[in-house]
Amino acid sequence: MALPVRTNSVKGLLFSIQKYKVAKRLFCAGKCTDDKETPGRRIFSGIQPTGVPHLGNYLGALENWVGLQDACGSVLYSIVDLHAITMPQDPAHLRRNILDMTASLLACGIRPAHCILFQQSQVSEHAELSWILGCLTSMPRLRHLPQWKMKSKQKNEGSVGLFTYPVLQAADILLYRSTHVPVGEDQVQHLELAQDVARIFNNRYRDLFPEPRALLSASRKIKSLRDPTSKMSKSDPQRLATIHLTDTPDDIALKVRKAVTDFTSEVTFDPERRPGVSNLVAIHAAVSGQSVEEVVWGARGLDTARYKEVVADAVNHKVAPIREGIVRLRAEGGYLETVLAEGAARARELAVPILAEVRKRVGFL
Amino acid sequence: MALPVRTNSVKGLLFSIQKYKVAKRLFCAGKCTDDKETPGRRIFSGIQPTGVPHLGNYLGALENWVGLQDACGSVLYSIVDLHAITMPQDPAHLRRNILDMTASLLACGIRPAHCILFQQSQVSEHAELSWILGCLTSMPRLRHLPQWKMKSKQKNEGSVGLFTYPVLQAADILLYRSTHVPVGEDQVQHLELAQDVARIFNNRYRDLFPEPRALLSASRKIKSLRDPTSKMSKSDPQRLATIHLTDTPDDIALKVRKAVTDFTSEVTFDPERRPGVSNLVAIHAAVSGQSVEEVVWGARGLDTARYKEVVADAVNHKVAPIREGIVRLRAEGGYLETVLAEGAARARELAVPILAEVRKRVGFL
Repeated sequence: MALPVRTNSVKGLLFSIQKYKVAKRLFCAGKCTDDKETPGRRIFSGIQPTGVPHLGNYLGALENWVGLQDACGSVLYSIVDLHAITMPQDPAHLRRNILDMTASLLACGIRPAHCILFQQSQVSEHAELSWILGCLTSMPRLRHLPQWKMKSKQKNEGSVGLFTYPVLQAADILLYRSTHVPVGEDQVQHLELAQDVARIFNNRYRDLFPEPRALLSASRKIKSLRDPTSKMSKSDPQRLATIHLTDTPDDIALKVRKAVTDFTSEVTFDPERRPGVSNLVAIHAAVSGQSVEEVVWGARGLDTARYKEVVADAVNHKVAPIREGIVRLRAEGGYLETVLAEGAARARELAVPILAEVRKRVGFL
Repeated sequence: MALPVRTNSVKGLLFSIQKYKVAKRLFCAGKCTDDKETPGRRIFSGIQPTGVPHLGNYLGALENWVGLQDACGSVLYSIVDLHAITMPQDPAHLRRNILDMTASLLACGIRPAHCILFQQSQVSEHAELSWILGCLTSMPRLRHLPQWKMKSKQKNEGSVGLFTYPVLQAADILLYRSTHVPVGEDQVQHLELAQDVARIFNNRYRDLFPEPRALLSASRKIKSLRDPTSKMSKSDPQRLATIHLTDTPDDIALKVRKAVTDFTSEVTFDPERRPGVSNLVAIHAAVSGQSVEEVVWGARGLDTARYKEVVADAVNHKVAPIREGIVRLRAEGGYLETVLAEGAARARELAVPILAEVRKRVGFL
């Protein structure tokens, strides 16, 4: 994660990571550290309010968010509820999911003192800028984005909101004059749209927006425990396929014990031929901060059944404090609302003067 | 005018008017007076900031606006600059046009004490509600609107803003829980969209929005002075075709003298066979507050050349105070900005609690 899209696309970033140590991965790779000196450097990322994230979300994106907030200057993280309603939502469920996502992000280590954590719909400038940018975006440009092609087919056309959401994504990013966006590979074309729209605006109304750059970071692709050829997903109908950040030690032990592996007892890392056990190795490496090689070396002599116990312990060791944090914070609805209100106020402080400048350049003021 | 669209569609309302006296027409016909007792009755209309309107705009819509503000309870008139940018605009020109339109509306008799006159982009709730309603609108529903079909063809596809502007129109209306919208015949399908969207919202989130009704009022279709088969238009390349509200007596005399008529000298009203002289009769009736019959009766014995002098005098009699008002107000940019700022504040007073309720029902709050 990445651009503000549905959480089930919180998945693969651009580099495969299995070869890197976690310590390296917490910081955005390459470009990020290079650019740390750049003045006005700003990172924007969004996540859909899908409730409590699963382990794949955490290892694939949120842990990276935590690293970025400390390493990389001005950082905004948005819970993108305006994007969520491009698909039908039950209102009470959506509200609960917004608060659960807030609790989860805080429990994962997002610190409002280090970044701006806010709910998108509380900053009205997002929708306003989106309207203005939509007037600079051609219809064919949107129609050719692969996500619309795919989603509209699945949904038999979909809503106007579903069609135009890449424009709102561009507005999300540009509203803060963001320079960098952590981006998943399925989102590269949407970031390109944001770059194009920035360029069109700058050409027509003089330079205002930096062209936001993809923040390439190491990626962990965590797979379903029941079908290691597909990614771990919140909406997986198989209850044992997905580890949630609120799972108890027993839940975790059961799910890892029932994880699909194969008939070879030895622990090796070979995602092609042994996807099941390799997924466990990847999870183990990720949660323990070891490399894949270290994990495999440590597991020599263990059979798969015994290794699953080791993995379950390691996962629980990582998840337990997050789970406890979520449970504690969920009970503090008032506190969560205060965090969001303060985040929105700080986001608006940045957004208001930028949108005012946009309005002036467009000719409204 | 009508729904908040480009001014060149400020044209025919639903009833042909030549048979009615102006005095009747100043009040919205039929339903309006019936509904005067309805509690919560609210009229919304918008006009594009195209600068100083022409006589066709005034007689076809704005004079009616003036009547409506006194006759019909709570009334909002919006200068819809968010709609204007669905077509490319020069920023300085757009800003000047916004102020010129404000000056013109005031000079025509719009009284901020009697209605809320405001600039759309100063009320951020329009764009916000538009996003939410776009998530309730299907793509095919928009694609089948005839204006998009026509405009996208002319413009070789057009922008996302041009495609989605009927959704913003729906938001403009519903944001104030408006009950009535003065509507031109080319806008009926857009009002139907607003009704549909209101119904969809109400069904999904419980009743909130009245389904806005068309406000049928008498219509005057003022034609080009150089080609009486097409309507009077601001963008007419023929300089003498259009009377602007800032035209001097000499401008008006010249344009009316050069108006295309025919080789019959007598004054009659027969739009089919004598479109030129009938257009002058219609203009004369409209500006003098007489019926077509009265005008024709009064012109008996005059030849066309002499009659044109009478028409020019009558037009100037109507236009002169408006022209003077515009000239005076144009010099008072600060005052115009104050009027717009106060209008926006009053519009927001109405919009904020309604959008807050929408947000709550959708699940954002």
